[in-house]
Amino acid sequence: MKLQLALDDFGLPEAIEVADKAKDYIDIIEIGTPFVIDCGMEAVRQIAQHFPDKEVLADEKIMDGGYHEAALAFEAGAEYVTVLAVTSDKTIEGCVKAAKDYGKQVVVDMIGVKDLPPRVAELEQLGVDYLAVHTAVDEQAAGRTPLGDLKVMKECATSVKIAVAGGINASTIRDYVALDPEIIIVGSGIGHAADPAAAARLIKEAMN
Amino acid sequence: MKLQLALDDFGLPEAIEVADKAKDYIDIIEIGTPFVIDCGMEAVRQIAQHFPDKEVLADEKIMDGGYHEAALAFEAGAEYVTVLAVTSDKTIEGCVKAAKDYGKQVVVDMIGVKDLPPRVAELEQLGVDYLAVHTAVDEQAAGRTPLGDLKVMKECATSVKIAVAGGINASTIRDYVALDPEIIIVGSGIGHAADPAAAARLIKEAMN
Repeated sequence: MKLQLALDDFGLPEAIEVADKAKDYIDIIEIGTPFVIDCGMEAVRQIAQHFPDKEVLADEKIMDGGYHEAALAFEAGAEYVTVLAVTSDKTIEGCVKAAKDYGKQVVVDMIGVKDLPPRVAELEQLGVDYLAVHTAVDEQAAGRTPLGDLKVMKECATSVKIAVAGGINASTIRDYVALDPEIIIVGSGIGHAADPAAAARLIKEAMN
Repeated sequence: MKLQLALDDFGLPEAIEVADKAKDYIDIIEIGTPFVIDCGMEAVRQIAQHFPDKEVLADEKIMDGGYHEAALAFEAGAEYVTVLAVTSDKTIEGCVKAAKDYGKQVVVDMIGVKDLPPRVAELEQLGVDYLAVHTAVDEQAAGRTPLGDLKVMKECATSVKIAVAGGINASTIRDYVALDPEIIIVGSGIGHAADPAAAARLIKEAMN
């Protein structure tokens, strides 16, 4: 089980500082979507350079132009790129082809998918590496929870690996670990903790 | 009727060069999604600085974090930001709120919407400024065309303005002008024309 630190709302120098504090306990450093929008692939390049023994994920949330946009991430040094589950299969195929060409991996963000099981089956067929549980705030208001969605996804996935995000922190981590996802994504639970290193350590310990 | 030049697959210096050639005939310069992913808001800042009398559109294709991601574009100097029609209403509301706070505008990219009329009605209610016809390659393979989608959108929109993209060039422009959209978006029809200035002039003339 890998721990992914999501960096969303930091500038580049501060993001490097936060990741540096947590680095002994994390496996993957995520350049979150607002961070990509703000700094572009320069953020991926700099984080990859500063942390050569960590994997980097570029949370591009690709909706179109799959091959080209995925290749931008891989060229910049990312191990993973994200594409939206609600996009067309053609776009996902483009991402998968880029990942094959570069020897890298595709993570599909499930945000906005109303009925998970049939889309999970289609995405497995398309050969993606990971599906990321992402329960939108709207869907949470309608009674869905990241934990509930994770349970559904673990049940219907046959070969694809599962990542999960959703306000996970040192006090909620055990509920997620119990469902055995391959990647656990934590953002402000580490980045905005009073002591990011201590929070990352507690979370990582709960995962072992 | 405004002419929008979409810059997708250029680096910053080349993008400025292309826009410079076409500048007498265009109203809006679009920083396309791959360009945003590659260069971040620096692309918006530099284009806005180089072309102070043009409007700039940041094609972020927002899927989540509406307010914050829209604000990044407006802070950088964009007049317009794009959000995906397939996202939640909460995210679109966030973008609209940011646009109000900054005195700027929201364009909704209709890519991936299977049934246009009901979503157009909902988006009008949410107070967005523009809807952009965007017929995905997949949907085109299934028989939908940008021109057909534009016709449907013009019929069902009551107050919202309409933008259209879809392989428009100097030889297809008249078909689009006939349907009277508020913005016509051209990418490679200008950017990859042998003579970008001449192509932009021909297109602009057909719009008058």
